[in-house]
Amino acid sequence: MARKNAFYAQSGGVTAVINASACGVIETARQHKDKIGKVYAGRNGIIGALTEDLIDTSKDSAQAIAALRYTPSGAFGSCRFKLKGLEENRIQYERLIEVFKAHNIGYFFYNGGGDSADTCLKVSQLADKMGYPIQAIHVPKTVDNDLPITDCCPGFGSVAKYIAVSVREASFDVASMAKTSTKVFVAEVMGRHAGWIAAAGGLASDKNCELPIVILFPEIPFNKEQFLAKVDGMVKQYGYCSVVVSEGVKGEDGKFLSDQGLRDAFGHAQLGGVAPVVANIVREALGYKYHWAVADYLQRAARHIASRTDVDQAYALGKAAVELALKGQNAVMPAIVRVSGKPYKWKIGVAQLKEVANVEKMMPRDFITKDGFGITEKCRAYLAPLIKGEDYPPFKDGLPQYVRLKNAAVPRKLGEFKV
Amino acid sequence: MARKNAFYAQSGGVTAVINASACGVIETARQHKDKIGKVYAGRNGIIGALTEDLIDTSKDSAQAIAALRYTPSGAFGSCRFKLKGLEENRIQYERLIEVFKAHNIGYFFYNGGGDSADTCLKVSQLADKMGYPIQAIHVPKTVDNDLPITDCCPGFGSVAKYIAVSVREASFDVASMAKTSTKVFVAEVMGRHAGWIAAAGGLASDKNCELPIVILFPEIPFNKEQFLAKVDGMVKQYGYCSVVVSEGVKGEDGKFLSDQGLRDAFGHAQLGGVAPVVANIVREALGYKYHWAVADYLQRAARHIASRTDVDQAYALGKAAVELALKGQNAVMPAIVRVSGKPYKWKIGVAQLKEVANVEKMMPRDFITKDGFGITEKCRAYLAPLIKGEDYPPFKDGLPQYVRLKNAAVPRKLGEFKV
Repeated sequence: MARKNAFYAQSGGVTAVINASACGVIETARQHKDKIGKVYAGRNGIIGALTEDLIDTSKDSAQAIAALRYTPSGAFGSCRFKLKGLEENRIQYERLIEVFKAHNIGYFFYNGGGDSADTCLKVSQLADKMGYPIQAIHVPKTVDNDLPITDCCPGFGSVAKYIAVSVREASFDVASMAKTSTKVFVAEVMGRHAGWIAAAGGLASDKNCELPIVILFPEIPFNKEQFLAKVDGMVKQYGYCSVVVSEGVKGEDGKFLSDQGLRDAFGHAQLGGVAPVVANIVREALGYKYHWAVADYLQRAARHIASRTDVDQAYALGKAAVELALKGQNAVMPAIVRVSGKPYKWKIGVAQLKEVANVEKMMPRDFITKDGFGITEKCRAYLAPLIKGEDYPPFKDGLPQYVRLKNAAVPRKLGEFKV
Repeated sequence: MARKNAFYAQSGGVTAVINASACGVIETARQHKDKIGKVYAGRNGIIGALTEDLIDTSKDSAQAIAALRYTPSGAFGSCRFKLKGLEENRIQYERLIEVFKAHNIGYFFYNGGGDSADTCLKVSQLADKMGYPIQAIHVPKTVDNDLPITDCCPGFGSVAKYIAVSVREASFDVASMAKTSTKVFVAEVMGRHAGWIAAAGGLASDKNCELPIVILFPEIPFNKEQFLAKVDGMVKQYGYCSVVVSEGVKGEDGKFLSDQGLRDAFGHAQLGGVAPVVANIVREALGYKYHWAVADYLQRAARHIASRTDVDQAYALGKAAVELALKGQNAVMPAIVRVSGKPYKWKIGVAQLKEVANVEKMMPRDFITKDGFGITEKCRAYLAPLIKGEDYPPFKDGLPQYVRLKNAAVPRKLGEFKV
């Protein structure tokens, strides 16, 4: 039993490229069969480990695994589930060890964001604290781009590209309609705490294609008067404008702007987005006709317009995770290091998990213009390379041909466990 | 003055491919300089004709005009403006003739939907009723796909492709999350009267990639109990489901489902979409965690994922309009004729404008499944060819390079006119 098997799982909100990381992990592991046996995937993240619901990825062909590179979503299922501390819930850790032992698992690859880095860090301590030898490597992923140390996070570049492209396209549309109809278009984007995705809306406008865009960042408290003056100025100058609003924008009272206490005719509470709220503010104060969109899952699932840079990095980080494991590392995360901006060059570095877990990277203030409604040149220089390149999936009869794996279950050896 | 100039204008909601029709009109006119002088475009549709705000398209290079083929939106500006009847507003028609005379315009190409066909029909009657010789040709365009006679409408195929691709991608996303998080995803799509766009959501699922999708059509009154039973059944069987809801869905009381009399905490009326209403209905009755999206302009502007079939047809119809004019036709619209379904073959036919204007083509009942929540094989056979093929625009630095024309004004010869 010198050769150990690997466990791989996906965690948190999925992205257009998390499967590209899975592809990197599995393909690289398959190239080192002398050291790594099988790659078992957790069905629905860490829950699959706790419940011994493992997927035998060796049942899928090289072709199917290669197709993960261009398939959005989490091929093995993800979960929103955070392990408690060892002291609080020792029984979960004992169960993990029991499952790892039963299936000869010596490598743990966890693909997720900040919460998942924390889970991965806890698993990495099993060797020290409970005497079970395991190497835990975190593979970064989050559309929010809020992990520290790594220059950027896989998943973000593709959402950024989708938002930049979509806001450019919608702005062209509004410009056409503005004379007799819509003058303000509001697009709501993800990013509850950090405004990275909202910032990407600023890329829609550049020196070759100037467009009037107003951005509302979660980092900047919403000031109604200043916002209305900005929108009105844009409409007076250009005839129209687009507003990109982060779902996480808060008022000066610290409350989410989306939380307007909406009630229907029967008094039932209604959960709305922030886009219609912002659109109504414009209508009430300025009287401009508007349209609004909420991209929601469409933005993070949009593999059809993924960034090639993002796909390449997602794959490379999966590959690097396996290589770090083979070098005997534990409690680390491969990270993107920006070598140069122009021309854009990057390489893979290594971050210590204890410096990653539970740390959120916000937009620096100097990435946001002084008035709070746009991105600076510094921000543009940071963002621009991340959306570079296209990486279209194969299409048949007009539709992308995404893979669905067999996801064959590994026979169980243990009793049930409730999570 | 034997050689006449042409007038071309864009009308109503713009699309990803209306400029491809403009490209077809202008390039074809340029090939017949012996018969057609310049192509003047109306700035903001027919309003440009009434106010003598004309654009000289000859100022733009062949390269710039060719780039219209892959540029979404209306390059010359569109308008929502319907000419009244000749008897009601004779002064507008006299003005049109005055402008046409001043600029030696003998051809009128109007690119729009049902309302625009009506405007075009009225202009076509100027020769008979007011003695001004003009040939008026309508170029069909509408994402709603609701024009009669033509097999389909340019603009629709690309929206259909965007919705089919996006619903497939989002469904993969929800499937990944369903174990511990989102189980129901609701996507709101355009189509206030006819459910063609909603139907396109059904294409996301096919025999190679079965997905649980529930469609709410404007043609089918919303039945809450049946809807909830359908969603619950899907979630119980598949673990999740996607709901595609047309903005125009009405309750059994005939009122728009989106019209819920929403009020904020201060009692102000709020204009919401139908997606959050449907999502709330699911949450209240079934308790499933949900996400919702409203694609709005993103869907009709999404040139980056346009259907090649749609682009080809949009161009061909623009070209055909000029050819019909050269053959001396008036009060007609070139139309798509489906020659065969499998393999898909189409050709250009001719429709009489009086049979097109103000007629809406709804989804036939046999295109919708008996339970009212899906598309039939007959519908699928109709829709599938329309989304075939990709036609990516050129990208630079990660962004599509759409053209913006010079839109140089033609010197005015007349006095002002108020519209």
